[in-house]
Amino acid sequence: MSLVVIGSVAFDALETPFGKTDKIIGGAATYISLSASYSLKPVKLVAVVGDDFPQSDISLLEKHGVDTEGLQIKEGEKSFFWSGKYANDLNSRETLVTELNVLADFDPIIPDAYQDCKYLMLGNLAPQVQRLVIQRLVNRPKLIVMDTMNFWMDVALEELISTIEMVDVLSINDEEARQLSGEYSLVKAARKIMAMGPKYLIIKKGEHGALLFHKNKIFFAPALPLEEVFDPTGAGDTFAGGFIGHLAATDDISFDNMKRAVIHGSAMASFCVEKFGTERLLHLTDKEVEAREQQFADLVAVVPASVVQNA
Amino acid sequence: MSLVVIGSVAFDALETPFGKTDKIIGGAATYISLSASYSLKPVKLVAVVGDDFPQSDISLLEKHGVDTEGLQIKEGEKSFFWSGKYANDLNSRETLVTELNVLADFDPIIPDAYQDCKYLMLGNLAPQVQRLVIQRLVNRPKLIVMDTMNFWMDVALEELISTIEMVDVLSINDEEARQLSGEYSLVKAARKIMAMGPKYLIIKKGEHGALLFHKNKIFFAPALPLEEVFDPTGAGDTFAGGFIGHLAATDDISFDNMKRAVIHGSAMASFCVEKFGTERLLHLTDKEVEAREQQFADLVAVVPASVVQNA
Repeated sequence: MSLVVIGSVAFDALETPFGKTDKIIGGAATYISLSASYSLKPVKLVAVVGDDFPQSDISLLEKHGVDTEGLQIKEGEKSFFWSGKYANDLNSRETLVTELNVLADFDPIIPDAYQDCKYLMLGNLAPQVQRLVIQRLVNRPKLIVMDTMNFWMDVALEELISTIEMVDVLSINDEEARQLSGEYSLVKAARKIMAMGPKYLIIKKGEHGALLFHKNKIFFAPALPLEEVFDPTGAGDTFAGGFIGHLAATDDISFDNMKRAVIHGSAMASFCVEKFGTERLLHLTDKEVEAREQQFADLVAVVPASVVQNA
Repeated sequence: MSLVVIGSVAFDALETPFGKTDKIIGGAATYISLSASYSLKPVKLVAVVGDDFPQSDISLLEKHGVDTEGLQIKEGEKSFFWSGKYANDLNSRETLVTELNVLADFDPIIPDAYQDCKYLMLGNLAPQVQRLVIQRLVNRPKLIVMDTMNFWMDVALEELISTIEMVDVLSINDEEARQLSGEYSLVKAARKIMAMGPKYLIIKKGEHGALLFHKNKIFFAPALPLEEVFDPTGAGDTFAGGFIGHLAATDDISFDNMKRAVIHGSAMASFCVEKFGTERLLHLTDKEVEAREQQFADLVAVVPASVVQNA
């Protein structure tokens, strides 16, 4: 089923306790698209880069089944650039450089061939730009998933809330859920946020897993305890890409299938952090993905199934 | 199967964002015993209090099936007293008062009737006292579970390590696992700690659940996302009591049954935090416990069971 992804395609320069990179390909839509491409192709990308963005990176995306018709290339302008440095525990990071460049006045153009969009993934961007994409689609997609971050809560809360109102699934982390709702308890926070519009809420807790809320239901997906986390950049976007990719590929938005989508997204994210940037996402096999999903299932499996009768 | 519990029986004065208490009954062995008593009776207690400890509180323990023959009452001395204040998010706490009193020279006496001990729970105490209990049991128990805390890593590391060497299951939190092993990755930390002696390691992550390690196997039990956490005091001890209580009641120390024991312990701990002190642990019904365990099962359940085939 037709999947459209909007978000940043950018350069990142990363520094972790394990090393540093020069400018490498990054951006929310890059991670989302690559991750989703393991579930279905094409992934129809809407994004903007400058003329400094190498054709080889665009070809790389295309090789993974990403349709780049909606990728604008601005002559004489530079691509979005972000540089960050992670603390030793990888749980906090410092932004060293943010150069908006082409993102400053990004006007998302939806190619006609994207108007069949049934699944829409709004990667982290200014909420007014995310909203424009919804408005420019002639038919409302079957499912709209939105990712955002605390930055927009600080500088554009009203715009953010008007966009959140329009989506089906919101994906944020625990600190963001607390900031957006003013509630410390994630159960209370989820209730308040779902009252703003989204019927589903995903709260990402990084190394502590992810929660999926819908009405009074809660599903919890653990994160895989990993020996090494090399670089957490893009993990949340990779999760989102795996999540919507699975839903679009199966064209099933039941709560049960959303659970499987959360597990799949978590599995994809667990690969992402194993190497720098998008590296680990470029050469996965279906077999590796399936084996990783099995590890997630095993992690919480209690045998025999009935916990109650044996407890 | 005969279960012996050693640890503190004490007074606590607690302050949380939701209120404060006068001196109420507390102490690791109190929480452990009450929690284990829902799985089997009697729970044979080894502890010490002063003559300020009210007979009514001792009767309360006895009413719950706690055998107090091993509870020493020191005439003219005072019971251990701890007072603490929790931060608004309940994730950190400040110790206001610690009065060791009778704990300062606690010499644990094992009644003859306790020598049938098959399951031994060493609640948090000076590691040399925990070790004395093992040494004073004529036969080595089938399973020894030990709880401890960072305080002993700071002031008695050598003693602590000699005691850890002797036990089967060590239960500590994530920060303590990192401190004890010098490893940030919990997978690496677990490997190092198991190399110190324990065949099993439980890493408690509070609101983020608990991990059980054995050889190369990992099991993860989530914590239940709660609307309200009222008072976290005793949650770790309640978990430990539920864990060993389940194992002793079923007399099955397979890894599969340990998983069920972790779920049961997590369920018991989720009750504990709903009210001040031991209050919530005093009036639980089997039905409530079973329903709570079912909530834990539902939280991670993916239907249909095969994640892989549907992903």
